[in-house]
Amino acid sequence: MDTSNTKNWKNKLHEVIYEADTPLGKLFDIVLLILIGLSIILVMVESVKGFSDRFYDYLYYGEWVITIFFTLEYIARIISIKRPARYIFSFYGIIDLLSTLPLYLSFFFTGSHALLTVRALRLLRVFRILKISRYISEANKLGKAIKDSGAKILVFLFAVLVVCIIMGTVMYLVEGEESGFKSIPVSVYWCIVTLTTVGFGDIAPVTPLGQFLAALIMIMGYGIIAVPTGIVTAEYAAGGKKPVVPLNTQVCSNCNAQRHRDGAKHCYNCGETLHYD
Amino acid sequence: MDTSNTKNWKNKLHEVIYEADTPLGKLFDIVLLILIGLSIILVMVESVKGFSDRFYDYLYYGEWVITIFFTLEYIARIISIKRPARYIFSFYGIIDLLSTLPLYLSFFFTGSHALLTVRALRLLRVFRILKISRYISEANKLGKAIKDSGAKILVFLFAVLVVCIIMGTVMYLVEGEESGFKSIPVSVYWCIVTLTTVGFGDIAPVTPLGQFLAALIMIMGYGIIAVPTGIVTAEYAAGGKKPVVPLNTQVCSNCNAQRHRDGAKHCYNCGETLHYD
Amino acid sequence: MDTSNTKNWKNKLHEVIYEADTPLGKLFDIVLLILIGLSIILVMVESVKGFSDRFYDYLYYGEWVITIFFTLEYIARIISIKRPARYIFSFYGIIDLLSTLPLYLSFFFTGSHALLTVRALRLLRVFRILKISRYISEANKLGKAIKDSGAKILVFLFAVLVVCIIMGTVMYLVEGEESGFKSIPVSVYWCIVTLTTVGFGDIAPVTPLGQFLAALIMIMGYGIIAVPTGIVTAEYAAGGKKPVVPLNTQVCSNCNAQRHRDGAKHCYNCGETLHYD
Amino acid sequence: MDTSNTKNWKNKLHEVIYEADTPLGKLFDIVLLILIGLSIILVMVESVKGFSDRFYDYLYYGEWVITIFFTLEYIARIISIKRPARYIFSFYGIIDLLSTLPLYLSFFFTGSHALLTVRALRLLRVFRILKISRYISEANKLGKAIKDSGAKILVFLFAVLVVCIIMGTVMYLVEGEESGFKSIPVSVYWCIVTLTTVGFGDIAPVTPLGQFLAALIMIMGYGIIAVPTGIVTAEYAAGGKKPVVPLNTQVCSNCNAQRHRDGAKHCYNCGETLHYD
Repeated sequence: MDTSNTKNWKNKLHEVIYEADTPLGKLFDIVLLILIGLSIILVMVESVKGFSDRFYDYLYYGEWVITIFFTLEYIARIISIKRPARYIFSFYGIIDLLSTLPLYLSFFFTGSHALLTVRALRLLRVFRILKISRYISEANKLGKAIKDSGAKILVFLFAVLVVCIIMGTVMYLVEGEESGFKSIPVSVYWCIVTLTTVGFGDIAPVTPLGQFLAALIMIMGYGIIAVPTGIVTAEYAAGGKKPVVPLNTQVCSNCNAQRHRDGAKHCYNCGETLHYD
Repeated sequence: MDTSNTKNWKNKLHEVIYEADTPLGKLFDIVLLILIGLSIILVMVESVKGFSDRFYDYLYYGEWVITIFFTLEYIARIISIKRPARYIFSFYGIIDLLSTLPLYLSFFFTGSHALLTVRALRLLRVFRILKISRYISEANKLGKAIKDSGAKILVFLFAVLVVCIIMGTVMYLVEGEESGFKSIPVSVYWCIVTLTTVGFGDIAPVTPLGQFLAALIMIMGYGIIAVPTGIVTAEYAAGGKKPVVPLNTQVCSNCNAQRHRDGAKHCYNCGETLHYD
Repeated sequence: MDTSNTKNWKNKLHEVIYEADTPLGKLFDIVLLILIGLSIILVMVESVKGFSDRFYDYLYYGEWVITIFFTLEYIARIISIKRPARYIFSFYGIIDLLSTLPLYLSFFFTGSHALLTVRALRLLRVFRILKISRYISEANKLGKAIKDSGAKILVFLFAVLVVCIIMGTVMYLVEGEESGFKSIPVSVYWCIVTLTTVGFGDIAPVTPLGQFLAALIMIMGYGIIAVPTGIVTAEYAAGGKKPVVPLNTQVCSNCNAQRHRDGAKHCYNCGETLHYD
Repeated sequence: MDTSNTKNWKNKLHEVIYEADTPLGKLFDIVLLILIGLSIILVMVESVKGFSDRFYDYLYYGEWVITIFFTLEYIARIISIKRPARYIFSFYGIIDLLSTLPLYLSFFFTGSHALLTVRALRLLRVFRILKISRYISEANKLGKAIKDSGAKILVFLFAVLVVCIIMGTVMYLVEGEESGFKSIPVSVYWCIVTLTTVGFGDIAPVTPLGQFLAALIMIMGYGIIAVPTGIVTAEYAAGGKKPVVPLNTQVCSNCNAQRHRDGAKHCYNCGETLHYD
C-alpha cells in the first residue's frame, strides 16, 4: 500500500511537472515560465551599471529566491521520474542544471555569474505549454524544412565563405591598412559584413577601385540572398504535402519520451502506460 | 411624413459619408483623404524648427480648420447611423476621435499636440475609395496570408529572440564595455541590429573573437531570413487557390457592417435593406 | 525613278538604324552602345575633381564628338522613318533628344551639363541587340510578374509608409532632438532607413526605450520583407504557366488526344469531330 | 612486364590522388584538405602585424613545408595521368599551379606573397570528399537553378545598374560635395550601397530632398529584392522535378573526366575502363 501510495504520489508530481494537460500542470508551467522570464530580466538588468548600484539588494535576493526555486524544481524532476538518467542527460536536463549552478559557483569564482543567462535557453520550454497541436506541428514543419535544406544551405554557405576569403584578400591588397583593412582576417570579416548586407560602416573602402569591388560584393550579396530563400521555400512548400499527426504534451513517466500522438495509450518508446488524468 | 423625411435625409447622409458608390460619396471620400494627408503633413512640418517659426500662423490656423472639419465629420457619422455605438466603438470610430481630441486637449496640456499624428491611421481609409474589387481582394488575400502565417512567424521570431539573448550575452562577455557593449540589454539590442542585417555601426566589435562571433551572427541572419519568406510565400501561393468573392463598398445603415458581396440586397449581418442609389 | 531611289535609300537607312537583323544593322547598334557607354563614363569622370583638371581638353573634345554623333543619329532617325512623329514623341525619341540637348544648352546655362547622364537611359537600347528572343521573353515575363504584382505591392508599400509615419513620430517623442531625431520628417526618414534594413548609423537611438522600439522596427522589417517576396514569387511561378486555356475532359475517338480546350469542335491533333453527348 | 608494372603503379597513384573511393584515397584527400586549410590560415595570420612579428620563424617554415608538399602533389598529379595536358589546363590544374608559384616568386619579387591566398580556391576540392551523392546532386541542382536563372538575373542587374547611375547623378546634384557626394561615381557607389540595403553610413544624405530621395531608393531596394528571389525560387522549384542520377568520385585515368554515374564500368567520355579497386 505504502509503495503504491508513493508511486501514485510520484505519478501526480510527474504529471504536474512534466505535462501540461491538467489545470495544475498548466499552472505549474506558466509559473515556471514567468520565473524564467523574470530571472533572465534580472541577469540582464544587473549588467546595467546605474541600475545594479541602486537596486543591488533587490536584485541579489531576487536572484537567490529564483535559483532556490529552480534547484527545488530540478530535484523534483529527478525524484518524480522512474529513470532519472534519462532526464539528467537530456538536453533540458543539462540546461536546467546549467541555469542553477552559476550562482552557487559565484561563491567561489567571480565572473561565472554572467553565465546565468544560459537560462534564456529554458524559455524554449514555452513550446510545451502551447498545447494547441497547431503550434507544435508548425514548429515540426519548420524544423523539418530547415533540416531538409541543411545540406544545401551548408554547400551554399561554404561557397559564400570561399568567396569572402578571396574577396577579403583582394580588398586587403587594394585598400591597404590606412583604410581600416588592417589584415586579411579583418578584410574577410568586412567582406562578410558587406555580403550579408549588414554594413556597419566602421570599415569602408576609400579608393575608387576598392569602392568598385565593394559594389560588386554588395550586388553579389543582394543577388545570392535569393538562393537560401529559394531552397527553404521550395523545401517548405514540398513539406506541406506530407501528413502531420496532432501531438499532445504527455511525457512518459518511465523514459521521459515526448511528442506522443494525441490519444496514445502507451509510450511509443518503452511501452509504459500514459496517464491522462 | 416628417419622420420619413428625416430618415430619408439620414440615409442620404449615410450614403455620402460611409459609402463610395455615388459621385457625391466618392467626392466626399477624396476630399476627406486630401484633408487627412494635409493634416499629417501639417503635424510633421510643425516639428521642423526653422519652418514652424516662420509659418507659425499658417500652421496654427490650418490645424484648427482641419480639426473642426474632422469634428463635424465625426458628429455627422454618429447622427447618420442608426446604432451610433457600432461606429463609436469600432476601430475607425476610435481613430476618428483620437485624431480630433489632441488639439482640444492642447489647450489644457502641453505635449499632447504631437499625438495628432495618430491621424496617420486615418489614411487607412484610402482602401475604401479604391473601389475596384481587385484591390480589396488583394488586400484580403495579403491579410489572410499574413494571418495564416502568424503562428509560424511567432514561433520563428521567438527562436530569433532566444538566439539574440544568448549571443548578446556572449558578445557582452567577449567585447566588454570599452567596445560599446555597455550592458547585456545593449548587447542584445546590437545582436538584433546585426541579425536583421540593419547594422547601424554605432556599436561594432573590435576584438578578433568578437568579430568572428559577429560574422557568425550575420551569416545566421542572412540565412534565416529565408524562413519567414518561405512561410509567407508557401502560404500565399496556397491561398491563391481559394475562391474570392468580389465585394462592394456598401455599408449597412443599421449595423455598419461592411464588405458586402457585390449585388447583395440585404445586409448579411442584420438583414437591413442596402440602398445602392 | 528618283523617288523610288530615295525611298530605297531611306529603307536601307531605316534597316541599319532601327533594326538589328543585318550585319550592318548589328554593327551600327554595337557602335552606338559603345558610344553611349563611353559618353556616360565621360560625364561621370568629369565630376571627379583631380581627373577633370588634368584631362580637361580630352574630356571636352570627347564630349563634343559624341554629342555631334548623337545629333546626326537623331536627325537620321527622323529622316528615315515614314511618320517622324511616331519616333519623336516615343519614349526613346524623347530620351535621344534629352541626351543631346544639355551640352548645347551648357553654352547658355551652367549646371545643365550634369543632365547629360540622362544618357544612361539610352543603355536600355541594349535589349534591342540581344536579339535572341529568349532574353526578350524573359524580360517580358519579369515585367509581367512585376506589373501583375503592382497592385499588391502598392497596398503593401502604403501600409509600410503608414507604419513608418506612426513609428517615426513615436521615436521623435521618445528620443528627442539631442539623439539626432531633429523633427518628425527626419524620424520618419530614419524609420524607413531602419525598416528596410539599410541602417546608415548617422542617426541611432540612444535611450533604452528608443533602442527597444528600434529593435521592434527592425524585427518587423526583417519579417515583412517576406511579403513582397512572396507576392512576386507566387506571381512569377503562376506566370510561367500562362496563357491558361480552360480545358475539358474530352478524349479524341480517333487519336486519343486529350486536353482539348473547352468548346472545341474538332481534335487539335487530327481534326476528328469531338462528340459532346 | 616492367611496363605493365609501371602502368599498374601509375594506376594506383592515380586512384589515391584523384579519387576518394578507397580508404587510402580518402585519407589522401583529407590530409590534403587539412593542409589547404592550414596554408590559408597561415597566409591570413601572416598579415596580422603583432602575430607575424612574434611567430615569424614558425610561419616561414610552415609556409615552405606546405608549399613543397603542394609542389610534390602537383608533380604526382601530372605523372599519374595519361594525358597530362588535360589536368594542367583544367580549372583545378591552374589553381594548383597558382597556389605554389607565389612563394617561389617571392624570392625574386616582393608582394607576390599575398597571392598565396589563391589557395582558398583549392578548398573547392572539399566537394570531392563529400562522397555521398546527395551532396553532389544538391550542388548540381543549385548550380543548375543559378545557371537557368542567369539570363533573367543579368537583365535584372542591368536594370538595377541603370537605376543606380541615374539616381546617383540626381543625388550628386541634390546633395553636392559637402555631404560626401564628391563626384558622380561616388554617388553611384553610394546608390548601390543603399539599394542593396548594406548602408555603410560613411556617406549619408543631409538635405531634406536628399533624404526623401534616399528613402525612395531604399523602399525600391527593399521591394525589388523580391525579384531575384522569386526567379531563383521558381527556377529551383521547377528544377526539383527532373530525375537526378547518383554520381561517384571516379576519375578517368585517361581523360580525367569526372562525374561518372555510380556503377559505370567505362568512362563516358573516352571509353577507358574505370578501376574501382
